[in-house]
Amino acid sequence: MRPLITLLTDFGTADGYGAELKGVLYTALPDANVVDLSHDIPPQDIELARLAVARYWHRFPAGTIHLVIVDPTVGTTRASLVVESDGRMLLGPDNGVLSPALLRPDARAFALQVLPSAAPTFHGRDVFAPAAAAIAAGAALESLGAPFPSPVIRRTREPTRLSNGAIAGEVIAIDRYGNAVTNILGAHAGRLDVGGRYVDVVRTYGDVPAGSALALAGSSGLLEVAIRDGSAARELELTRGAPVIFRRS
Amino acid sequence: MRPLITLLTDFGTADGYGAELKGVLYTALPDANVVDLSHDIPPQDIELARLAVARYWHRFPAGTIHLVIVDPTVGTTRASLVVESDGRMLLGPDNGVLSPALLRPDARAFALQVLPSAAPTFHGRDVFAPAAAAIAAGAALESLGAPFPSPVIRRTREPTRLSNGAIAGEVIAIDRYGNAVTNILGAHAGRLDVGGRYVDVVRTYGDVPAGSALALAGSSGLLEVAIRDGSAARELELTRGAPVIFRRS
Amino acid sequence: MRPLITLLTDFGTADGYGAELKGVLYTALPDANVVDLSHDIPPQDIELARLAVARYWHRFPAGTIHLVIVDPTVGTTRASLVVESDGRMLLGPDNGVLSPALLRPDARAFALQVLPSAAPTFHGRDVFAPAAAAIAAGAALESLGAPFPSPVIRRTREPTRLSNGAIAGEVIAIDRYGNAVTNILGAHAGRLDVGGRYVDVVRTYGDVPAGSALALAGSSGLLEVAIRDGSAARELELTRGAPVIFRRS
Repeated sequence: MRPLITLLTDFGTADGYGAELKGVLYTALPDANVVDLSHDIPPQDIELARLAVARYWHRFPAGTIHLVIVDPTVGTTRASLVVESDGRMLLGPDNGVLSPALLRPDARAFALQVLPSAAPTFHGRDVFAPAAAAIAAGAALESLGAPFPSPVIRRTREPTRLSNGAIAGEVIAIDRYGNAVTNILGAHAGRLDVGGRYVDVVRTYGDVPAGSALALAGSSGLLEVAIRDGSAARELELTRGAPVIFRRS
Repeated sequence: MRPLITLLTDFGTADGYGAELKGVLYTALPDANVVDLSHDIPPQDIELARLAVARYWHRFPAGTIHLVIVDPTVGTTRASLVVESDGRMLLGPDNGVLSPALLRPDARAFALQVLPSAAPTFHGRDVFAPAAAAIAAGAALESLGAPFPSPVIRRTREPTRLSNGAIAGEVIAIDRYGNAVTNILGAHAGRLDVGGRYVDVVRTYGDVPAGSALALAGSSGLLEVAIRDGSAARELELTRGAPVIFRRS
Repeated sequence: MRPLITLLTDFGTADGYGAELKGVLYTALPDANVVDLSHDIPPQDIELARLAVARYWHRFPAGTIHLVIVDPTVGTTRASLVVESDGRMLLGPDNGVLSPALLRPDARAFALQVLPSAAPTFHGRDVFAPAAAAIAAGAALESLGAPFPSPVIRRTREPTRLSNGAIAGEVIAIDRYGNAVTNILGAHAGRLDVGGRYVDVVRTYGDVPAGSALALAGSSGLLEVAIRDGSAARELELTRGAPVIFRRS
């Protein structure tokens, strides 16, 4: 079976940085299957990268190697990690982007050795890609670095239950459709207070007329606010961190 | 031969939705060749997706499986289709995005069964990708759903011939270069009336000086308006639906 | 081994042009590994494409076929090239995008035959992709066209040494992070005069506080100006061509 290596970065593509990284991978592993997941993470947006990783890392088969390179502190003392978790391997900086895989109790983390020849601004090309290639070729994680017992873990803030039974949460992400994803696990009935505006929880976008606001349990199970055929973020002026309150009906 | 599966979506990449879909495909088909065509269709732009599908669906070899997920009414009663047309398979919502393949007389459409466990906001991951994997593994279309005799067909509006022999059409798409593609099949001589401005039909962009407007038969055979080294859409204020009139010279 | 073919274009993806090109490749070479490097080169930005090619073309293994399609003069008398350089093949228009490979003394260039059936606006689909497929299938370059002795070569302008020992250069590219890459080969100490503002050369971004300006030797060895956790291009109003002066400390 060909090694399956995925890429999530904030490189964009026009500057050629990701192209260099792919050249390193294919030179080491001509038969690899290198799969672009995204190069469009906004520059240095660790939080959005973490949320994307949470969505996909475990949907790929065991044996997959995930490279996650959103790395504003590249070249400092922050560690370069490889993590094994439930049979998947993940490589990326120690800044929380790998948290979804690190939260499993069986996760093991190692700090990669960084050779002096590595460019201090581009560990994706000079540290993470070579390590991914070594792992795909069969190297044991232990051979690539030292156990790293305390990696940075970032978590989505938990919503809080109010005395009246309502749940107070917040917007954690705005997606490409302008949907505002919250940190409140979904329900099938109820309403969401979004900055003083009440929005009913429905099943899917088509359950309301075009232009209407709605809330629903999205595909990861979290409640999100949407405008049918519109952008909730723009029309309701929602950004990350905006408070929302859910009340069951 | 490895299964060849293409992806056209309006997901963007940063939110991780397409990454989840790829995880589903590679888990079912570790040896598949999953080819990104675009994730940058503007959100819910069925029309642009249809025009892109018209360009590419038949250029791929027989046996290719095309996933086309631009799906504003996901989770409603709209059907989830699989279409076989001239040896290619296409999967997508019943909203017209698959029209170019459905227009062939030999096309066969089936409505996929949707399990209750499918997220009502993400059939790409939970309905279309699993069906694509089943087809790639050899499942007969008949085993995946019921024949669907009347799928939605969207067509580009036909231009009309005026009494003076001119042809009245309209802009159907603006491409990345700012070229305005019309619904008038190309000619090698003549001129185009674009909102009162007359533009000569030439052979290629370099046939006029930099900064000049021109019209030509584009690579799909349709007349398009361009500005050499510029954007016709911006400089001539052209949008979809703008009327144009072609006169042979 | 499967043929490895990379793509760098200014097509974007939403219009379906690159999808057509991939269809041509996979029809001819069902087993090919077609690797997207970028479709997001700004329209007709030959210079940015050339800089990206310089980064990646030689990092891929010998035998790789690189398609580089940024082609504002498509359909004119400009030649359509295939270049062999140090075991890699590159195909693209004769406008300088292939310069990094052409600068090697062993490089050989040929002008591809262009059939009358080729669309004069889309040689990527009708000339370069078929030629790439022929090469991958074993065709000799000599069989595809005539030797082309004088291809267009574009070079980054050299910085100049001033009488006081300082080096006068300029910004040659702005990357996705807003870093301004210059044409001055890196140093580990010194300072850069950027429009009257003095910026110290450091080792990596994390060596200065958030929000501070810095200069460093980037991953291609050239000095670049950055703002930690910000955009130097925006905050220092830097664009391509902006003058910079480096002084060793």
